[in-house]
Amino acid sequence: MKLIFLGTSAGRPTPERNVMSVALRFPEERNRFWLFDAGEGTQHRLLGTKLKLSKLDRIFITHMHGDHLYGLPGLLTSRTFHDGAGKLRVYGPKGLADYLGTVLRVSEAHLNYELEVSEIEPGDTLDLDDRFSVETAELDHRIPCIGYRITERPRPGALDLAALARLGVPPGPLYGKLKRGEDVALDDGSTILSSEVVGPPSDGRIVTILGDTSPCDNAVKLARNADVLVHEATFGAGMEEKALDYGHSTITQAAGIARRAKAKRLIVTHISARYGEEEVAAMVAEARKEFPELEAARDYLEVGVTP
Amino acid sequence: MKLIFLGTSAGRPTPERNVMSVALRFPEERNRFWLFDAGEGTQHRLLGTKLKLSKLDRIFITHMHGDHLYGLPGLLTSRTFHDGAGKLRVYGPKGLADYLGTVLRVSEAHLNYELEVSEIEPGDTLDLDDRFSVETAELDHRIPCIGYRITERPRPGALDLAALARLGVPPGPLYGKLKRGEDVALDDGSTILSSEVVGPPSDGRIVTILGDTSPCDNAVKLARNADVLVHEATFGAGMEEKALDYGHSTITQAAGIARRAKAKRLIVTHISARYGEEEVAAMVAEARKEFPELEAARDYLEVGVTP
Repeated sequence: MKLIFLGTSAGRPTPERNVMSVALRFPEERNRFWLFDAGEGTQHRLLGTKLKLSKLDRIFITHMHGDHLYGLPGLLTSRTFHDGAGKLRVYGPKGLADYLGTVLRVSEAHLNYELEVSEIEPGDTLDLDDRFSVETAELDHRIPCIGYRITERPRPGALDLAALARLGVPPGPLYGKLKRGEDVALDDGSTILSSEVVGPPSDGRIVTILGDTSPCDNAVKLARNADVLVHEATFGAGMEEKALDYGHSTITQAAGIARRAKAKRLIVTHISARYGEEEVAAMVAEARKEFPELEAARDYLEVGVTP
Repeated sequence: MKLIFLGTSAGRPTPERNVMSVALRFPEERNRFWLFDAGEGTQHRLLGTKLKLSKLDRIFITHMHGDHLYGLPGLLTSRTFHDGAGKLRVYGPKGLADYLGTVLRVSEAHLNYELEVSEIEPGDTLDLDDRFSVETAELDHRIPCIGYRITERPRPGALDLAALARLGVPPGPLYGKLKRGEDVALDDGSTILSSEVVGPPSDGRIVTILGDTSPCDNAVKLARNADVLVHEATFGAGMEEKALDYGHSTITQAAGIARRAKAKRLIVTHISARYGEEEVAAMVAEARKEFPELEAARDYLEVGVTP
């Protein structure tokens, strides 16, 4: 899994940073990917990557502010130009269906694929498929804002081929059953336990992607032991009061959340347009005193998710 | 006056061309400017020009398709970051108020300036101010689409200073009255006719900016004698049937409209993403046989409007 930052600016675009979006790409699944937020110009940023809209199958919106949302309709309509685009699921807070319904209706947009829009309640757990579940919780922003914790289910252990041969299990469908955890009966009447021939499952990876928020306990809860935490850092250290007024965090506060959550790595994003690259570098250096495994996102930054 | 093309692609952005928007800038009025259409990413394109959102005071939308519209909410909200941004007027077809109302409401956008949204009927004439009027007419597209003809009112002729001196008119407020076309009485009882001391008015300039359309009589009517006509050319010559199916024009059809209208200059835009720059150059060369004063727009192209 790999995160690709498509927009990292708060509120409005700058010549260097677009407004918010981050992709989660699955190279092992033919480059299928998801998006978290879709600020205006997200589809333009995708043109600068190898990500193809036909490979996008889920979008998660954190909250309804424009810098996280206004790129969604154009992305949906441009997706119709891509051959082989299957069903697309969009998750987000209350208001999302009204927004998309109105925009697509008044602009007479006709999508050539199935679109499923799900308004979720913070606290919902999304059991997406055999591979991933997503926990959600409400963050502390001016308007309802959802944080997402993506958990890869434990991956089955490896088959012990020597043990299978020793126990007389013929290669074929029984291997798959055993690997999936099922015990099987052989023709000779003996029973083979899955645990006899399959190694211990490996932990799945955890990625936590939060929206706009002041520091809060739910951020810590969602980020607990995450391999990568993506947290906003709208302001530099010392601007805690302004950050609180606007429902945001400073970079040092983001570092504190990562430390409390025992996250392995922190990428900060949603950086105010007031800061140039040099100022961001200085902010990062300062905040690393609180949490050393911290990096500031920039547009097109790629971050591998490793356990 | 100067046109600045901000987006010239049909339907979806390409790495070279953004979706539709063109600015009309008034350098003689402190760089005040208007926009015609605002596809997604228009505010991003503005970042690459000297145009400041605080200087934007009118926006005209041709029709409600996303590639002409989806950049409007982000542009409106980013304008709140600019000091000195006064009232902004947005004109467009039915549905525009519903669109903007819903989008700004669900995204809880708070504008710090007055926004006036006017849904207009094709055929309406907008008497904007002392300097400009705008005529509109319905074009021939899949959905209602408005073409705009911007007419500068005749500019008063120059004062004949020698004649004023000879006739004994004292410098001062009387000069202004005479220039505005009023006749004045002098203290000695004589009457000075404006026409005696003011040269003939010069014609105002005419810019016609059309939206998406198949060739139609209203396009010719709006473009009559225009100094600059901006017409779509989605397809190359030979694709007339496809163009008609989708309510569009070929570049040769656009040239034909300019010729029939006796426009002085034609800039074609809204060029299908299928065409690269070399193909566009070949299309232009061919269509110049129909109308020599033809040029294809590209993003950031600037075109002076001269009589």
